Amino acid sequence: MSVVRPKGFVANGVHCGIKAGDALDLALVATADGQPVPAAAVFTSNKACAAPVQVSRAHLAASGGYAAGVVINSGNANAATGADGRSNAEHTCALVAEGLGCLETDILVCSTGLIGIPLPMEALVSGIEPLLRGRKGNEVFGAKAAEAIMTTDTRVKETLVGTGLLTVGGMAKGAAMLAPNLATMLAVLTTDATASAGELQEALRAAVDGTFNSLVVDGCQSTNDTVIILASGKAGAPPKGALAEALTLACADLAEQMADDAEGATKVATIKVTGARSADDARRAARRVAESQLVQCSLYGGDPYWGRIVSELGSAGADFDPDRVSVAYGGVVVCRDGVAAPHKEEKVRAHMEGRMIDVTADLGLGEGTATFLTTSLSPAYIDENKGTS
Amino acid sequence: MSVVRPKGFVANGVHCGIKAGDALDLALVATADGQPVPAAAVFTSNKACAAPVQVSRAHLAASGGYAAGVVINSGNANAATGADGRSNAEHTCALVAEGLGCLETDILVCSTGLIGIPLPMEALVSGIEPLLRGRKGNEVFGAKAAEAIMTTDTRVKETLVGTGLLTVGGMAKGAAMLAPNLATMLAVLTTDATASAGELQEALRAAVDGTFNSLVVDGCQSTNDTVIILASGKAGAPPKGALAEALTLACADLAEQMADDAEGATKVATIKVTGARSADDARRAARRVAESQLVQCSLYGGDPYWGRIVSELGSAGADFDPDRVSVAYGGVVVCRDGVAAPHKEEKVRAHMEGRMIDVTADLGLGEGTATFLTTSLSPAYIDENKGTS
Repeated sequence: MSVVRPKGFVANGVHCGIKAGDALDLALVATADGQPVPAAAVFTSNKACAAPVQVSRAHLAASGGYAAGVVINSGNANAATGADGRSNAEHTCALVAEGLGCLETDILVCSTGLIGIPLPMEALVSGIEPLLRGRKGNEVFGAKAAEAIMTTDTRVKETLVGTGLLTVGGMAKGAAMLAPNLATMLAVLTTDATASAGELQEALRAAVDGTFNSLVVDGCQSTNDTVIILASGKAGAPPKGALAEALTLACADLAEQMADDAEGATKVATIKVTGARSADDARRAARRVAESQLVQCSLYGGDPYWGRIVSELGSAGADFDPDRVSVAYGGVVVCRDGVAAPHKEEKVRAHMEGRMIDVTADLGLGEGTATFLTTSLSPAYIDENKGTS
Repeated sequence: MSVVRPKGFVANGVHCGIKAGDALDLALVATADGQPVPAAAVFTSNKACAAPVQVSRAHLAASGGYAAGVVINSGNANAATGADGRSNAEHTCALVAEGLGCLETDILVCSTGLIGIPLPMEALVSGIEPLLRGRKGNEVFGAKAAEAIMTTDTRVKETLVGTGLLTVGGMAKGAAMLAPNLATMLAVLTTDATASAGELQEALRAAVDGTFNSLVVDGCQSTNDTVIILASGKAGAPPKGALAEALTLACADLAEQMADDAEGATKVATIKVTGARSADDARRAARRVAESQLVQCSLYGGDPYWGRIVSELGSAGADFDPDRVSVAYGGVVVCRDGVAAPHKEEKVRAHMEGRMIDVTADLGLGEGTATFLTTSLSPAYIDENKGTS
């Protein structure tokens, strides 16, 4: 169930002292021999991106799409930390590279935690040696790495997709700015498939669009969001499309775990838009509904208030005809052609009482479809995010 | 303090039975003689706009920018009600027009309340005769009208701006989808100034952009939002620019009252962006910060977490340089050139404890400035919006 299941990888997680107590706060995923393999990444598009994002992007460009390892700290985002922040991220990479015996530009770096506070380098540096020394290729160490990247996550998030021909393993934390006190959605994936950096990038981009980029908790975009994949090539070249498919399954699994563990989320809802004029319109409409604070409040209350769904669809910027829209909860149509439809209220009520809610909106205009995951907005979310201390 | 203070207008508010108990739920603002005067309006851009929005828009077009009165019901939005909804809105206008002795197209109509429920026409029709019969030009009746448009508002919202040469009066309810169970932001303004429909439209659009359109509670756009102005001409033609100025003051006053009465809002914050590359960029950036669920949570907690402000600025779609941004709370700079700035924490803490919070972000890139009003996100907001019953 982890990043070490595909052949050719090791991992570890240790406590270096960024977090209080003895919580694990420093993680490593690396190739078993410490040498670079093809790699790809998708980073936040936030212009206020954190130092580790800037450094990882530069390293991946310098190495021509190769990496030997990823070092990740939790408890501090190293964001809004200026030139010192970049130099701290560089220094972290240099120390890991020295230990692995590769180039500094072969190391990628991620951070997750509070924004605007200098990275406590003394603590971090003290953890590098034990982190490297203890790295191993068995599940226990994969789980340690997954634990060390947690912030307000309540559960470790790992995934494994095996097709017989190739294996994709992964770990992740958070969901978008879900747990923004300790910001960031991070995911590290590994595969034993043989693939070029370009093939990896293409497959990763497609997988992310349909999964992590279709998950909304609060619509906020973190300074640190990063998804990375390394490919060891130990299993040889997969059939065309197989890697992209496995990657999408792995990312979807991690995204669902994130939604399920979203802060204060009492409900997880799938928002499916069909019948849009185009796929883009469908995405716009589904995203608008998924992001709506009001829809999220209704989900929290288990209230099938379809008027809000229609209102959000109408203001999504997608083509919309108020007389053609239909809305269903759990497959029961409650609005047809823009007006209330007679339905079995008991059936809808029962569906709304569950933890997983299905909302389908048909725009009646074309063939475009899109699906987003979202969560309920609860007082616990506010409580978690009202302060940093 | 009301829509009847400018000469030439009457108003009334009655209980017709849409709301429970004896709460006022039907309002009228009309010219004293029941004859049309120049009028203008700004409507929601939501494509799922309610029947009254469709009908009012059509009436204003048919009359060439004239209106004799506005009839408004609360307790039901007449939205997502299809052809029946439009016919009900038309019928309401026809009855009012008959009573006033004007054309049906001289009457504008607004509704506010739950979406997707047929308008209870029997109740509404029963209220028209007493509504018209009791209309008067004194403050008590202006206040009745203002009360009859309330939904979850806790206070009547009225304004009066007099310049000596002209008077603008107004009443409003809600704030955007602030009180979305009983949706809608509505405002009706009157003036005794002489102005053409075109001049009114131009002045109203400018006033709305800088006030109601710069107020964010939850970023949701109602199906029913409407702002209307009628000009009696009793005070003659004002000097150039005077009407626009008075209208902006009146709208700003109403917008501030809305923010102050926003549901569950424990804090009201002014988000000012300066130094943007352009005015458009400044608006984009200020809106993004104002809409942020996370920033609103920080406001609720009174927590000066500037990292979230920077993160939202970076993802606003405006030009942004992470090394040039500064952020201040209550005039105290807490972030300079993108990193934490030493400051008097006690002074910031004292500012954050107040009800009104000032956030200023300077992007350091140009001369563009913009200001938005926003509110804290509190558990009370969720509680208010989790269900419709």
